[in-house]
Amino acid sequence: MSRIITVGAAQLGAIQRSDNRSAVAARMIELMRQAKSSGCDLVAFPELALTTFFPRWFMEDQEEIDTFFEHEMPSNEIAPLFSAAQEMGLAFMLGFAEKVDEGGRTRRFNTQIIVDKSGKQIAKYRKIHLPGHAEHEPWRAFQHLEKRYFEVGNLSWPVVRAGPDLNGALLGQMICNDRRWPESYRVMGLQGVEMVLLGYNTPVHNPPAPMHDRLGDFHNHLVMQAGAYQNATWVVGVAKCGVEEGCEMIGGSAIIAPTGEIVAQAVTREDELVVARCDLDLGRSYKNSTFNFARHREPEQYRMLVERKGAKPPE
Amino acid sequence: MSRIITVGAAQLGAIQRSDNRSAVAARMIELMRQAKSSGCDLVAFPELALTTFFPRWFMEDQEEIDTFFEHEMPSNEIAPLFSAAQEMGLAFMLGFAEKVDEGGRTRRFNTQIIVDKSGKQIAKYRKIHLPGHAEHEPWRAFQHLEKRYFEVGNLSWPVVRAGPDLNGALLGQMICNDRRWPESYRVMGLQGVEMVLLGYNTPVHNPPAPMHDRLGDFHNHLVMQAGAYQNATWVVGVAKCGVEEGCEMIGGSAIIAPTGEIVAQAVTREDELVVARCDLDLGRSYKNSTFNFARHREPEQYRMLVERKGAKPPE
Repeated sequence: MSRIITVGAAQLGAIQRSDNRSAVAARMIELMRQAKSSGCDLVAFPELALTTFFPRWFMEDQEEIDTFFEHEMPSNEIAPLFSAAQEMGLAFMLGFAEKVDEGGRTRRFNTQIIVDKSGKQIAKYRKIHLPGHAEHEPWRAFQHLEKRYFEVGNLSWPVVRAGPDLNGALLGQMICNDRRWPESYRVMGLQGVEMVLLGYNTPVHNPPAPMHDRLGDFHNHLVMQAGAYQNATWVVGVAKCGVEEGCEMIGGSAIIAPTGEIVAQAVTREDELVVARCDLDLGRSYKNSTFNFARHREPEQYRMLVERKGAKPPE
Repeated sequence: MSRIITVGAAQLGAIQRSDNRSAVAARMIELMRQAKSSGCDLVAFPELALTTFFPRWFMEDQEEIDTFFEHEMPSNEIAPLFSAAQEMGLAFMLGFAEKVDEGGRTRRFNTQIIVDKSGKQIAKYRKIHLPGHAEHEPWRAFQHLEKRYFEVGNLSWPVVRAGPDLNGALLGQMICNDRRWPESYRVMGLQGVEMVLLGYNTPVHNPPAPMHDRLGDFHNHLVMQAGAYQNATWVVGVAKCGVEEGCEMIGGSAIIAPTGEIVAQAVTREDELVVARCDLDLGRSYKNSTFNFARHREPEQYRMLVERKGAKPPE
């Protein structure tokens, strides 16, 4: 048996501050059209897909900050994207900055949702591993203030079973920096995940450690390939990339099989669609052998992973 | 500052059942001589380095099984290896099958030790992720009966601080199948590990999933490179390889930097030494930035890793 869904990783090139959401939605709809004509069932967009990557700036005016957040989803400006998808019968994953009233206060998250072919939102994830810093660091050419503008996500890493329109796929999500942490994949691996959708915005230059810059593309693929293999899942990684407001970001969007192999990858730093036919059952032989967790994991031995946060060398 | 230790990965080719321990020790001493002449401080040997990989056979006679185990370390046959190392002033890591009286009974583990330049044993590890099966599966051309012949290790994954002879290196160990599980690296990453030493015996053919065979070398490197990068540690992976008693095993011994890059690798399936000068401080910039665990890990979100053993898909 094979359970195929055809997936498009819809990489986005740079979005400048002056680009409004309607213009961005128009670019995304064009990628959706390409996806449809390639036979896609599902198209995945990047993290914070609707605006420029604003955590690169230190801002104090909450009203200004909130211009980068979505107060309803979809807003009027984004509604055409949702309509186009529904008309084409395309499911999609979308990342955006979410402002929400919850628990009697306003909260802000770095969020992704999955919408099925009928237009129904079937999954939401809020980013857990927020990178960067919370305070202004003026020595940096660009800030990375995700710890300032977002709360840590409060929805864990949920895995949902999609409907027949997506062949009953067990879908999970993570966002950007989550992909460097094997714990993110494993929480979903333990829910039998068959496909992880993840968007990212990754600057080429890491100001606290510029000697790492030459390895950005390598590390991006390394962690996604390992996460895919070690949990026998497809991983669909989608970049926003190119030079945004003077800040250069990596591309390298990729669709990775449960074997750990890259089966499709972007070769530009612009709007670019890459497509793969993904057999959701391809990971089954790994889940039943090498990575049969019930037979081979030893959770009693992993306690330090939850009991200790930072590293403590022996005396 | 840089804290260099020079390390040799001493890959061993096949050991047949008829090869006695003295003959094996002589091969290992030859590799030690090469290591010494290459300026090595430390040389690492494979898992179960002293005999053929016996879990490939189903045996019921405990006396026969015990011929593959070490009842004391070093035994008379192995003593020349220890003496040679001490004379050369070489530290080494050695894997062997350990039979020990502990807790009022005889126990058997798949074990590795580290001996410093003075001849003192400074670390012991007993394999936790035992692969394979416990019962005879006659349909297999070769068994993989580690779950039959060994108990799960009871020493966790300890990290030790070596003495000045090894530049105070924070050394950890794992064995073979452990390297496929990100939890193994992470427990040591949480102890600030700077170098993980690991030996393996990995058959080319995986009888329950023969379609994975073509990827054996790729997976071997993928998991070690990801583990190195994600914990900012050196990883020294050492194979026993070649065709043992008709069973083909992968080589690919490698020394991997905390960047995730392979800096030295074996190109044969025979006795072969590969050497790298390893700066123990190379991982520091990662531990202080991307992988600053105290800043970026979210242990509350990882509880499923210890609360659940096998995978459970959502309803």
